[in-house]
Amino acid sequence: MKNDLTGLQQSVSLQSAPTRAARLRQMIGGGELQLAMEAHNGFSARIVEESGFPLIWASGLTIASSLGVRDHNEASWTQTLGVLESIVESTSLPVLFDGDTGFGDFNNFRVLVRKLCKHEAAGVTVEDKLFPKLNSFAGGKQQLADPHEFCGKIKAGKDSQTDPDFCIVARTEALIAGHSVAQALERAELYRQAGADAIFIHSKESTAEQILAFASEWSGRLPLVVAPTMYYRTPPKVLEAAGVSIYICANHNLRACLRAMRMVCRQIMADRNIVAVEDSIGTIKEIFDLLDYSELDAAEARYLGVAAKT
Amino acid sequence: MKNDLTGLQQSVSLQSAPTRAARLRQMIGGGELQLAMEAHNGFSARIVEESGFPLIWASGLTIASSLGVRDHNEASWTQTLGVLESIVESTSLPVLFDGDTGFGDFNNFRVLVRKLCKHEAAGVTVEDKLFPKLNSFAGGKQQLADPHEFCGKIKAGKDSQTDPDFCIVARTEALIAGHSVAQALERAELYRQAGADAIFIHSKESTAEQILAFASEWSGRLPLVVAPTMYYRTPPKVLEAAGVSIYICANHNLRACLRAMRMVCRQIMADRNIVAVEDSIGTIKEIFDLLDYSELDAAEARYLGVAAKT
Amino acid sequence: MKNDLTGLQQSVSLQSAPTRAARLRQMIGGGELQLAMEAHNGFSARIVEESGFPLIWASGLTIASSLGVRDHNEASWTQTLGVLESIVESTSLPVLFDGDTGFGDFNNFRVLVRKLCKHEAAGVTVEDKLFPKLNSFAGGKQQLADPHEFCGKIKAGKDSQTDPDFCIVARTEALIAGHSVAQALERAELYRQAGADAIFIHSKESTAEQILAFASEWSGRLPLVVAPTMYYRTPPKVLEAAGVSIYICANHNLRACLRAMRMVCRQIMADRNIVAVEDSIGTIKEIFDLLDYSELDAAEARYLGVAAKT
Amino acid sequence: MKNDLTGLQQSVSLQSAPTRAARLRQMIGGGELQLAMEAHNGFSARIVEESGFPLIWASGLTIASSLGVRDHNEASWTQTLGVLESIVESTSLPVLFDGDTGFGDFNNFRVLVRKLCKHEAAGVTVEDKLFPKLNSFAGGKQQLADPHEFCGKIKAGKDSQTDPDFCIVARTEALIAGHSVAQALERAELYRQAGADAIFIHSKESTAEQILAFASEWSGRLPLVVAPTMYYRTPPKVLEAAGVSIYICANHNLRACLRAMRMVCRQIMADRNIVAVEDSIGTIKEIFDLLDYSELDAAEARYLGVAAKT
Repeated sequence: MKNDLTGLQQSVSLQSAPTRAARLRQMIGGGELQLAMEAHNGFSARIVEESGFPLIWASGLTIASSLGVRDHNEASWTQTLGVLESIVESTSLPVLFDGDTGFGDFNNFRVLVRKLCKHEAAGVTVEDKLFPKLNSFAGGKQQLADPHEFCGKIKAGKDSQTDPDFCIVARTEALIAGHSVAQALERAELYRQAGADAIFIHSKESTAEQILAFASEWSGRLPLVVAPTMYYRTPPKVLEAAGVSIYICANHNLRACLRAMRMVCRQIMADRNIVAVEDSIGTIKEIFDLLDYSELDAAEARYLGVAAKT
Repeated sequence: MKNDLTGLQQSVSLQSAPTRAARLRQMIGGGELQLAMEAHNGFSARIVEESGFPLIWASGLTIASSLGVRDHNEASWTQTLGVLESIVESTSLPVLFDGDTGFGDFNNFRVLVRKLCKHEAAGVTVEDKLFPKLNSFAGGKQQLADPHEFCGKIKAGKDSQTDPDFCIVARTEALIAGHSVAQALERAELYRQAGADAIFIHSKESTAEQILAFASEWSGRLPLVVAPTMYYRTPPKVLEAAGVSIYICANHNLRACLRAMRMVCRQIMADRNIVAVEDSIGTIKEIFDLLDYSELDAAEARYLGVAAKT
Repeated sequence: MKNDLTGLQQSVSLQSAPTRAARLRQMIGGGELQLAMEAHNGFSARIVEESGFPLIWASGLTIASSLGVRDHNEASWTQTLGVLESIVESTSLPVLFDGDTGFGDFNNFRVLVRKLCKHEAAGVTVEDKLFPKLNSFAGGKQQLADPHEFCGKIKAGKDSQTDPDFCIVARTEALIAGHSVAQALERAELYRQAGADAIFIHSKESTAEQILAFASEWSGRLPLVVAPTMYYRTPPKVLEAAGVSIYICANHNLRACLRAMRMVCRQIMADRNIVAVEDSIGTIKEIFDLLDYSELDAAEARYLGVAAKT
Repeated sequence: MKNDLTGLQQSVSLQSAPTRAARLRQMIGGGELQLAMEAHNGFSARIVEESGFPLIWASGLTIASSLGVRDHNEASWTQTLGVLESIVESTSLPVLFDGDTGFGDFNNFRVLVRKLCKHEAAGVTVEDKLFPKLNSFAGGKQQLADPHEFCGKIKAGKDSQTDPDFCIVARTEALIAGHSVAQALERAELYRQAGADAIFIHSKESTAEQILAFASEWSGRLPLVVAPTMYYRTPPKVLEAAGVSIYICANHNLRACLRAMRMVCRQIMADRNIVAVEDSIGTIKEIFDLLDYSELDAAEARYLGVAAKT
């Protein structure tokens, strides 16, 4: 891995290198399942990159959670976008942004898409629920948007992107809202016709039965994206065989943090001492390495050396 | 633990409850060592509170790291303040904010102190280095501020606080910069005379020798604050006996996250499957509980029921 | 006028002075018509204060316009709140914040109200339209919210305020949407029963006929707020006699800027010279005086003198 | 003028159109004097564009003032950048950003330059004073940076830009700080050698004597930029003949607003009525036209018509 920020930036300016959006587009249409790993800030994004994932999922749930609020549009869209900015700037990977419902109507989505392109996001998912949306696993009423109005939103987004490779992934919550696979298919087909680049089919079942039924009927009309948080036992190979392109590990970094911080906090409080946790946590040096502090030394030599020499 | 946001807010409005700043002031002067635990966002702050710590340390290093940048004032002070805001709103605990050097001169520090009071921070630490500061453990040149100019900064801060209990903790980096304990004492005494509420004496040695020498000579002229990241083997009891009031676990939550995310990311990539990590990470339900999603259901019944009934 | 920032802040901390919310509450219920003047940033707020107005209107239209976007929730609620923060910090006046529809459902409004109390806004108006709202004068479809759902929003807001004097002003757009005065009255009565502190009755007619008919029938059940942008010819005395408490000059500062900047820009371009505009615009010294630069000199003497003397 | 936002964005994506930075580079090196007009938010930027100026000056003084704070780095660099973002998104013109001192050391300036390139600023000015800087006209001590350290900052900035046409304009405050023209020339020459794209020579004298002496000796080694706020009587033609490329009308829009808002506020308060000011201020319709509300109607027909038709 290359953590050098200057290096990242320089690679961006090379005209010949494919953009992040182009890389996402290639992954989505490449015929092989790709793993996308969740990040909720620049720090976790760095870990995703160093671990070898080809794609980052900037999750609405985990970004909201890290901000200490609920995944119910309690954070504003610009707050969430600020986190996306930090994620993009911290890595060289393509980032797929969880755009919720687009944060309003077609016009809010246009504003969002333009900002995402400027911030060099590779793509966005937009789902057919109403603003403010509630997390798909949180129960409550999950009211779907009118599918035709949602098609207008997709079309508005496609017309607004300033990077031709930017991907708009239409996510249907039909299964989440308790509708049938047939209804999900009907919506997905409308979204395809409206110009979506891929379909995100979501389910909260503990098996992939619905997803596989959907995929079978869908027959590869567009690439498929899934987030198997609940049906995690289904092997990715099975989903790949069914036509899934992007397999999103949607919240696993935050969940790792939750477990780890709880253990560390509890042990320190129980011991009233930090000595016992020292070996089970990362080091200060690891933080410095991850964020490339050594580049600062090199830069100081380069830019302050000018002053020093004279 | 009580995670109910409405509850938190209501408690704030009770006139009789001591403010967060008053609680910090009491801890600092209470004669017993108190553990402060690091948080770098609202999510980690929630875990600190549920674990029973009485105080949160809003760390400059970990906030910068979580934003994906280096602890060298690469994040702006308002970005850092935004994280503080999220931490304060996510808990009912007092929060001690890592104010670096005050982000400029005495006037920048005045602006900061007014904002911190508005955001209900309980106190701030301000250190005698130059802006932009480099993390104390990152090596490099650690140039100290003129002590008299720094005294003006402390005085300006004290004159600007709008909450009388807000605490300004003067942090001397004399030992970090390679100066003697005597010089650290000389600076600390000046800062005391300038109005500081406590002295944060920092060291990067692997033993507490310097700190204990300082504390012995200091003789309790003001309460002491320490962050024993490097001399973690020293039992808190020893530091308490030497007169330390606040013992800051300065970066342990982020370090827990670093280790945990690395393990999870590497395992998922190695397995190309998420099934194996499922049992070693927190659950979606734990996230929902931590952020009190059930309060939403109750609120919907209360506020949408008005509509439903008619 | 007192521009001294330190002075402002100190007055805030005096327990005996009435809060901004208390002052707004007193104005609303005081039986006399009060003029509220629009501000769209800290600079215009300073001018409102020095001109002697007792109240600032933080207008959604002019804040959005100054940000270069349309009054259709193209700016996020936190961006708008950032402007409010700048307005409040720049003056000692009470500020009534234009809360649009509350930026979502009852829960978004709760989040907003808590933030507004923290930012020391004196009150908020919330209108019975759907998110994203379009400016009332912009034509288009102006779809009203279900009145009972809107009552839940008012109630949620009232339950969430942390300052007991904070005012929630329910604004009905019934007349804007083409409904009758009777329907406006029906909605206003429901909002009163839900706990609103005042009613904002809005109209885009060029005369006050509708407003006066409403006020007559309303008979002072709660104080009334108006923004006579379109029926500007109606003397405030007439509205006061009809029971209006707050008369909002809703956009006049931005409109003054628009005209003035156009004239200056056109003249400079026509002349290709700045000399001719010099006498028709403010001076640099006036800017410095408005923002109290002389306080900096005094503060430097005070806080850097400590360093200088030693 | 073309206000259509969609149009603006589409033009951006056309590969053949010169970028904003390329247009600034061309102006700077074009041999003719160009007028840059100040903007402090998206609204004023729109007026600058419609008036025919080829270049916008995003002024530190007027942005700080509009935020209600002093031009002494009381606003954070990200707050100022947020205003720049709004200015860029509101126009199609190149924008030259007032980068103060770079907001810290060479590394802060690197971070800034990367962000400016992402936000599509055309260039930045950076001045040889210390952070926090005080406005050049505000008196006080105006302490200059070490010229060699400043050269490191320029070099760091040049190495960090991701758009090859982005311009870094080195601004010397030597004359402002009371130094001689010879000293200003010496600094300017060092900055040229360090890689600056142009030299901003600043003066607070009421005549252009110093500037013309500087320009004469400079002999066009690099293009020159000036802001003749104080020597406004000097005809631009005279400066052009001396080799000036960019003539910045540095604060005239805000000063126009100041005068206009004061007049309107005072009259309304004196009359206790808004009727008299109506004809001397812009109209609501002018606001709507400036921000292109009609585009919304067209877009609704296009994107909601999809829903309507089915």
